[in-house]
Amino acid sequence: MDPVRIYEVTPRDGLQNEASILPTSAKVRLVEQLVAAGHKDIEVTSLVKPNWIPQLSDANAVLTALRQPPDGVRYWALIPNRRGLDRAMDCGLGHVATFLSASDTHNRKNLNRTRRESLSNLQRVVGDAVNAGLSVRAYLSTAFGCPYEGAVHPQRVVDMVMQLRSFGAQEIALGDTTGMAVPTQVRDIVDRLSRAGVDLGAIALHMHDTRGTALANVLAGYEGGIRTFDAATAGVGGCPYAPGAAGNAATEDLIYMFTKMGCETGVDLTKTAEIGVFLANVLNRDLPGRYHQFHTGRLASCPIPSGEATA
Amino acid sequence: MDPVRIYEVTPRDGLQNEASILPTSAKVRLVEQLVAAGHKDIEVTSLVKPNWIPQLSDANAVLTALRQPPDGVRYWALIPNRRGLDRAMDCGLGHVATFLSASDTHNRKNLNRTRRESLSNLQRVVGDAVNAGLSVRAYLSTAFGCPYEGAVHPQRVVDMVMQLRSFGAQEIALGDTTGMAVPTQVRDIVDRLSRAGVDLGAIALHMHDTRGTALANVLAGYEGGIRTFDAATAGVGGCPYAPGAAGNAATEDLIYMFTKMGCETGVDLTKTAEIGVFLANVLNRDLPGRYHQFHTGRLASCPIPSGEATA
Repeated sequence: MDPVRIYEVTPRDGLQNEASILPTSAKVRLVEQLVAAGHKDIEVTSLVKPNWIPQLSDANAVLTALRQPPDGVRYWALIPNRRGLDRAMDCGLGHVATFLSASDTHNRKNLNRTRRESLSNLQRVVGDAVNAGLSVRAYLSTAFGCPYEGAVHPQRVVDMVMQLRSFGAQEIALGDTTGMAVPTQVRDIVDRLSRAGVDLGAIALHMHDTRGTALANVLAGYEGGIRTFDAATAGVGGCPYAPGAAGNAATEDLIYMFTKMGCETGVDLTKTAEIGVFLANVLNRDLPGRYHQFHTGRLASCPIPSGEATA
Repeated sequence: MDPVRIYEVTPRDGLQNEASILPTSAKVRLVEQLVAAGHKDIEVTSLVKPNWIPQLSDANAVLTALRQPPDGVRYWALIPNRRGLDRAMDCGLGHVATFLSASDTHNRKNLNRTRRESLSNLQRVVGDAVNAGLSVRAYLSTAFGCPYEGAVHPQRVVDMVMQLRSFGAQEIALGDTTGMAVPTQVRDIVDRLSRAGVDLGAIALHMHDTRGTALANVLAGYEGGIRTFDAATAGVGGCPYAPGAAGNAATEDLIYMFTKMGCETGVDLTKTAEIGVFLANVLNRDLPGRYHQFHTGRLASCPIPSGEATA
């Protein structure tokens, strides 16, 4: 079976809403651990205005401390606009991720622009980045539903993907921003993209686990032909003040599923579980990913007592 | 799309390893809430020796307090042997669930018998129950792997399913007891059963979420033709002393996925989420199911702050 590429978003999407601000050194250590586990694509920070996301206000310090990525590894940073692109280039980054939403209300709340303004803005920013030799990913948020508007028509998603591709974005990540998607919906959009002639190799799925469906959605995406999946170790993410505002598909669970299905991910499961334990420790809270908890439990050992019926 | 039947195991499998012993009245209230949410099949307790599972040592009191189920609702109890069947019949129960494992080591640890002894025992117990007019489900535990022996050959699972069917068991629940299964494996076993001429309408999947794959496995089962799935509200289950020893697929997440896919479950999602909140309260711990946490968060409200980038 075809191998799977994991795009690791822990340092950015995973951390951005965490209340306890991690020191820059912990973030750098996290990225180094992700590299040591085998990750090749890591979104390391966000170059938005520092006061937008306090957790990531040390973006420049993180990028400076990380220096150049090891051979074959790509460090990505989220950029909201031209200013973010300039900062990325000043830091010598070769890979940037832009974003907009498939729904107007979310786009306005997230970017203070209409969807049309964002598209027009991205046309320039993506073009400039590509001309400068950078690789560009574009997130299309709320692609499977909007928390404000509800359903988003799949044809709009297809149209926007084709626009973003025409701007020069090498990869489009379809964001299930608040975890509303179900597998049939994922399959429907993937099939529509395929019928529209979009190269599925340029599409990534960015699934949040708000309603428990992230891994089932990833499976449906794989069956439809998608090979790149975003994930956050231990499923970290969301808002710790709001139970249920959940993070991405947990990297360790995704690795377990794909590896046992015979799809290589190139990332070590045990090391990933240990990064999950590290994250839960530094953030001082339980994290939802399953396998890293199982890994902890296995170390503590919980044999089934003899004679206890546990069907 | 075909409707889905949920077999609710919260009062038995969900609670059996919980450290804080619930009063009988809370268990009765739980079952009543499950009925009010629309459940038709509820495994309400276990008729094993009272000292085996302290949490369920009030089985007779629970059954007495529940009396007859409402029209169209079936109360099931787990029974390990002939003695359990006698107790079930004394209580006037019409539905019992027996169990054995697909692997010898787990069967010995769980039932103090070899697999062969269990099969021979079940032939009599199932036969007696059917002759007495009861409906019989049989769990085949460790059907997707054994925590002691590792892989379990799928042909053994097919053979044991056919044996249990020949004894008269109306339903066989394939147990992924420690959550080792992945979707391709589920699909392989379902396809083998189908090719062997087993009526898939007599097969249920009982998936635990130890490694985060429960819902993806359920999806694979549905795609293969399975229509009955075991679930525990809020994903309760496992051993609270061992992080990662996880409960079943969470009922609310399963309902969300199937309902949005267009498969009726007959069970109300909001009521189920509220039962999840109730359970977390009475057990005084966070439970892993996602949608009931999202439901809580929605009540508390967590809008995306204007201008905050959350791609």
